[in-house]
Amino acid sequence: MKPQSPAADAWTRSNPPLLRFLNTCLNEFSAETSGTVADYIPELGKADPAHFGISLATLDGHVYEVGDSRVPFTIQSMSKPFVFALALDMLGATKVESAIGVEPSGDPFNSIRLNADNHPFNPMVNAGAIACTGLIHGSKGDAAFEEIRKALGRFAGRELDVDEAVYTSESQTGDRNRAIAYLLKTNSVIADNVAAVLDVYFRQCAVLVTARDIAVMAATLANRGINPVTGEQVMTPYAISRTLSVMTSSGMYDYAGEWIYRIGIPAKSGVGGGILAALPARLGLGSYSPKLDKHGNSVRGIKVCEALSSHYDLHMLNRSDDARNAVIADYDIGKSPSRRVRRPQEREIIAAHDQDVRIIELVGTLSLSAVDYVSRRLAARPRPQFVIFDLHRVTSTTRAGARLIAEAFAELAALNITVVISGVKRASREWDSLREWTAELRNVRDFYLLDTAIEWVEDQIVYRYGGSIDFHETTELAEQPLLAGLTDEELTDLASLCTIRNYQAGEKIVATGDPANSLFFLRSGAVHVTLTDGVRLATLTAGMAFGEMALLESTRSADVLADISATAYEVALGDFERFRKQHPRAGERIMRNLAQLLADRLIVANARVDILTSM
Amino acid sequence: MKPQSPAADAWTRSNPPLLRFLNTCLNEFSAETSGTVADYIPELGKADPAHFGISLATLDGHVYEVGDSRVPFTIQSMSKPFVFALALDMLGATKVESAIGVEPSGDPFNSIRLNADNHPFNPMVNAGAIACTGLIHGSKGDAAFEEIRKALGRFAGRELDVDEAVYTSESQTGDRNRAIAYLLKTNSVIADNVAAVLDVYFRQCAVLVTARDIAVMAATLANRGINPVTGEQVMTPYAISRTLSVMTSSGMYDYAGEWIYRIGIPAKSGVGGGILAALPARLGLGSYSPKLDKHGNSVRGIKVCEALSSHYDLHMLNRSDDARNAVIADYDIGKSPSRRVRRPQEREIIAAHDQDVRIIELVGTLSLSAVDYVSRRLAARPRPQFVIFDLHRVTSTTRAGARLIAEAFAELAALNITVVISGVKRASREWDSLREWTAELRNVRDFYLLDTAIEWVEDQIVYRYGGSIDFHETTELAEQPLLAGLTDEELTDLASLCTIRNYQAGEKIVATGDPANSLFFLRSGAVHVTLTDGVRLATLTAGMAFGEMALLESTRSADVLADISATAYEVALGDFERFRKQHPRAGERIMRNLAQLLADRLIVANARVDILTSM
Repeated sequence: MKPQSPAADAWTRSNPPLLRFLNTCLNEFSAETSGTVADYIPELGKADPAHFGISLATLDGHVYEVGDSRVPFTIQSMSKPFVFALALDMLGATKVESAIGVEPSGDPFNSIRLNADNHPFNPMVNAGAIACTGLIHGSKGDAAFEEIRKALGRFAGRELDVDEAVYTSESQTGDRNRAIAYLLKTNSVIADNVAAVLDVYFRQCAVLVTARDIAVMAATLANRGINPVTGEQVMTPYAISRTLSVMTSSGMYDYAGEWIYRIGIPAKSGVGGGILAALPARLGLGSYSPKLDKHGNSVRGIKVCEALSSHYDLHMLNRSDDARNAVIADYDIGKSPSRRVRRPQEREIIAAHDQDVRIIELVGTLSLSAVDYVSRRLAARPRPQFVIFDLHRVTSTTRAGARLIAEAFAELAALNITVVISGVKRASREWDSLREWTAELRNVRDFYLLDTAIEWVEDQIVYRYGGSIDFHETTELAEQPLLAGLTDEELTDLASLCTIRNYQAGEKIVATGDPANSLFFLRSGAVHVTLTDGVRLATLTAGMAFGEMALLESTRSADVLADISATAYEVALGDFERFRKQHPRAGERIMRNLAQLLADRLIVANARVDILTSM
Repeated sequence: MKPQSPAADAWTRSNPPLLRFLNTCLNEFSAETSGTVADYIPELGKADPAHFGISLATLDGHVYEVGDSRVPFTIQSMSKPFVFALALDMLGATKVESAIGVEPSGDPFNSIRLNADNHPFNPMVNAGAIACTGLIHGSKGDAAFEEIRKALGRFAGRELDVDEAVYTSESQTGDRNRAIAYLLKTNSVIADNVAAVLDVYFRQCAVLVTARDIAVMAATLANRGINPVTGEQVMTPYAISRTLSVMTSSGMYDYAGEWIYRIGIPAKSGVGGGILAALPARLGLGSYSPKLDKHGNSVRGIKVCEALSSHYDLHMLNRSDDARNAVIADYDIGKSPSRRVRRPQEREIIAAHDQDVRIIELVGTLSLSAVDYVSRRLAARPRPQFVIFDLHRVTSTTRAGARLIAEAFAELAALNITVVISGVKRASREWDSLREWTAELRNVRDFYLLDTAIEWVEDQIVYRYGGSIDFHETTELAEQPLLAGLTDEELTDLASLCTIRNYQAGEKIVATGDPANSLFFLRSGAVHVTLTDGVRLATLTAGMAFGEMALLESTRSADVLADISATAYEVALGDFERFRKQHPRAGERIMRNLAQLLADRLIVANARVDILTSM
C-alpha cells in the first residue's frame, strides 16, 4: 500500500456536517452541569453524572455517534412508546384503545389520577404504561417479558439485556406504581395478577440500552416501523403512527404543548437519563446524560433536542413538498421507441399511432399528492390506448398513493386503456403493494424493463393495426439499409462473398473483445445486442445488419445472441475490403449509409437525453 | 372544430380519483342529517341546513370542488389560526408568546379559565383569540380590522367581505366574550379599549368565506405559508409551523388527543359550519355544512375529515422518505464531457484528470436528509478538486437543507475544493436562499447551464495542468479529424476548392432550414451549434468541422453562430462532390471519418442516457 498523501488524509478525516454538529453539541453542552441524577430508584443514583453520549440515525441506515454513545443505561419511560406499539400490533387496536385513553392529562408522569371513564389518560403516563404491560401479560402470561424484550431488540437492531440491579432496586421501591396497578385492577383495566404485571413492568424499565440503540429505535419510529439499519419491518405503520401521536400529545406530559410548539419533534425521556426524538421521514435521535431537570428530563438531552430543532429548523410541521417532482419524464412513444430495430412497415404503423402510447417515468415517493398530480397530468392530453408507468426510480409508495393508483387504474380500465408498469421487481415490497391494490384489475400488465414494456406495446400497436411480425420471413441483401443504393451487380458480387450461417436460440454469435473481422446481415429470425453487464442495446429482426461497427473498430464492443433460431449472411472483413477496392462507389455508399444509421441513432439518443433532462 | 368522438368525450368526462372520492363523500354524507344549526348567535340560525360543500386544494395549486363549495358562510373560529399567524409575523413571536400560552386547556372553546400565569391557555380558545386580536389592535388601532381582513384574503387568494348581519347579531349577543375580554384587561393581557378590540374580533368572526376559500387557506398552511394558487408567501414559515402546532395540540379543544390519534391532520372548525384541515406538504381541505355536533363541530365536516384520513391512510405521522432519491446521477467528468469539442492535447489533459471533477445531479426537495446523504456519498470516493452540483430539477430547499449545504460547502472550502452550482436561476427563491447561506464562502461558483459549468471546470483543469487555449491560433486542413488519412495531394486539391470566410462575434453562419449546400472547416476562433429553441449542441474551436451533416442531409438542422471572431474554410457541396469523384478513396475515407465522429458522439450520448437512467 502506498502511503496516504496529506491531502487524501485531510479528505478522509473530514467530517460530514451532521457529525460536526453533534460534536459541537457534545462540547458545548458538556459545560452544562445543572440538574440531579434520579435517586428515587436507589440504583439509578450510581450513574456517572459526567457521562454524555449522542447518536443520530438516518433513514438510509447511517448512524452518527459522539461521546459516550455506547455506555449502557436503563431505558425506563422510553420503553412506553415501544410497548404501546407492541400492544397495538399484538392485541389489536380495539382492545388496547378501549382500555387506555389518548388525551393528555396535564399531570406529571407518575400521576395516579384516571380519566372520567376510570381508565388511564394515555399510554405515556405510568398508569397507561402499566395497563399496556398488563394487557400483554394477560395475553402472553409468563412469556410477556420475553416478548417485550425481543420487540425492544427488534427496534434497536440487537438483543437487549436487563440491568438486574436496577430491576431489583426498582422492584423494591416501586410502591407508587403498585398503588397505580391496584387502582387499575379495581377498575378492571388490569385483569391479572398485579404482582406479575408489575414484575414485567419493572423488568421492562430496566432494559439496558445505549444512546446509539435509542437513535436506531427512534429512527424506526421515524421510518414507519422499518428499522433503517436491519431493514426489518418491526411494527405496522398503524401502530407506529398512533405511537407517535401519543408521544406528540402526551410524551412530554404537562409540557407537551410547549414541546410541539418550540421543538416540533415527537419525543420521550426516561429517568435513566435518556431522551429519544423521532422526526418522521427524517431521523432518530438518542441522547444519554443522567442529570435531570425538575420535570425529570435529561438537562443536556433537552438542550440537544432544542439545538437540533433550532439550528436546522426541523419543526415537523414546517414542511412543504412539490408533487410535480414525481414526474421525471412524460412523452409519447414516438419520442423514444424501444431498442427493437423495426422494419419500415412496422415503423410506419407505430409512427402513425405514436400518440396512442403515453410513457410517464416517476421518481421518489408515490404519495397521494404525486399520484393525484399524475392523474391530472395524464387527463390534460389526448386519450391514449396504452399508458406505461415506469417506476424503477420510485423507492416507496405510501398507502394513500397506492390506493389512489388503484383508483386511477380502475378509471383507466373503464375507458379500455391498458396500463403497463415497468421497473418493479417481482416479489419486492413495492410489487406486493401494487398487486394488493390492483389485483382486481384486468387492464394492468407489468414488465421489469421499460424497454421490454415499450417493445410489448409497440407489438400490440403493430398487431392491432394490421401489421404482422413474421420471425420466419427471409430477407435478401437488397433489403438491407446498410446496402441501400447499391446496384444489382454490386449486390450480386457482394452476395458471392457471403456465407449463410444458422444459429440456435440463445447461441452467442459475436463476443465482446473478439477481433472484429466480419459483418453480418440478418436473413431471418431475431438477435439482440447486449453489453457484458446485460444491458440490451438493440433487438434486430430480419433485414438488419449487425457487427457492422467492424467497419470502424477492430474489436467487438458488444455481444450478439440469437433470440430465436436465426440465419445470417456473414462477410469476412478481408473479402469486404477487396469488394470495396473493386467497387469504390459502393464502398463510399456503404460508409455513407453507416454514417446515416449512426446519425439516426444519435437523434434517438439525444432525444432520450432531452426527455430525461428537460423536466 | 371537428365533433368530439364518444371515446374522447368519455376521456374528457373521466374524473380524477380524488374528485370521485369527494363526490362519494358528498353523496354518502348528505344522508347524515343529525346535529343542530348554531343559534347562540341568532343570525347563524338562518343558515340552510341542507347546504353541503367540500373543496380540496393541492399544493400544486389545483382546487377540487363538489356541492355547495361556493356558498358563503362566516368563518367564526376558523379565523383564529390565521390571526395568530398574522400576530406572530406582525408583532414578533416574543411579544405574542409572552401574552398567550400554547398548552391545551382541556376546556371547551368558550372557557373563561386562564392559566396559572393569568394568561390564556392557547390562541385557539376564545380567550387566546381575543388576546391575539387585542395585540394587533394595540399596534394598529383603527386599521387593525382591515389588516386582518386583508391577511385572511391573502390566505384565500381573493378579497373577503364581512356579513354585516352576523356581525351585528354577534356583537349584540357576545356577552360571554365581553366577560373574557374584561378578564384579560384586568390581567393586563389586553391594554386597550375592550369595546374596540371586541368590535374587531366580532368582525373577524363574521368574515365571509366558502368551502373553496377554506381549502385554499388550509393549503397555504400546508405549504409553509405559500398560497399554492397565487404563489404568494402569505406568512413566514415560522408563523405557519407554530400555528399548525397550536392547531395540533389545541385546535379541537378537549378532543385534541383523540383527533391527532385518529385523524392525524391539524384542523379547526367554526360554529358557522366550516371545518378546515391542513395536512402539511400534502393538501388543504375545506368543508361547509351548518349542522353541528355537541362539541360545536360540523357533523358532516367531521365525517369528511375521517373519511379522507382513513380511506387514504393520511395520518401526518405515518410518513417515511428515502433521501437516496435525491441523487439522480453521480459521475466523473470523463463520463460526460461538455459539448465543447476539444482538441487532442486538451482532451488528454482532461482525461488524465477526469476523477478530479465529480458531478452530482439532484432532484426534488433538498432536505436535511438529502443533503446529509449527499455529503456522505461524496466522501465515500476519492477527493475531487471540483464538485458540480446540478440543481435544475430541485424544486425546493428546506431551511435545514440549506443550512447543511452551507456547512458542507464550508467543509469543502477548508479542503480547497471548488464547488460549482448549476441549474439555479439568478434572483429566484432558490438562488436567494443559497446566496443567503453561502455568501461567506469563496469557493462557490454558479452557472445556469450544467454544460457551461462542466466547460468552465474543464477549462480550469486545462489551465492548471499546462494546457492553454489560444482562440487566435490558426489551424490547417490537415489537422481536421474529418480529413484524417488524406494524402498531401488530396488535401492540396481540396484546399484549392475552399474559400476563406471571416465572421464577427455573434454572426449567424448557418441557419436552420436553409439548404445544406456547403461544408465548413473552422480555421480560427470559436463557434457554437444551437437548436432554434436555444439549446446549445456543441461549441467548436479551430480545427473542427461544422455543417458537415450536409454530407447526409439536404437541409440545415441547426444554427451555427460565431462566439468570437472566427475564420473558416468553406467548400461548396458541388465542388466537394467533384473532388470525391476525382478521389474516390478520399471520398470513402471522409465518409468513414464522419461515421467515426458520429459513433463517438453516440457513445457520449448513450453514456449520458445510462447515467440518467441507472440510478
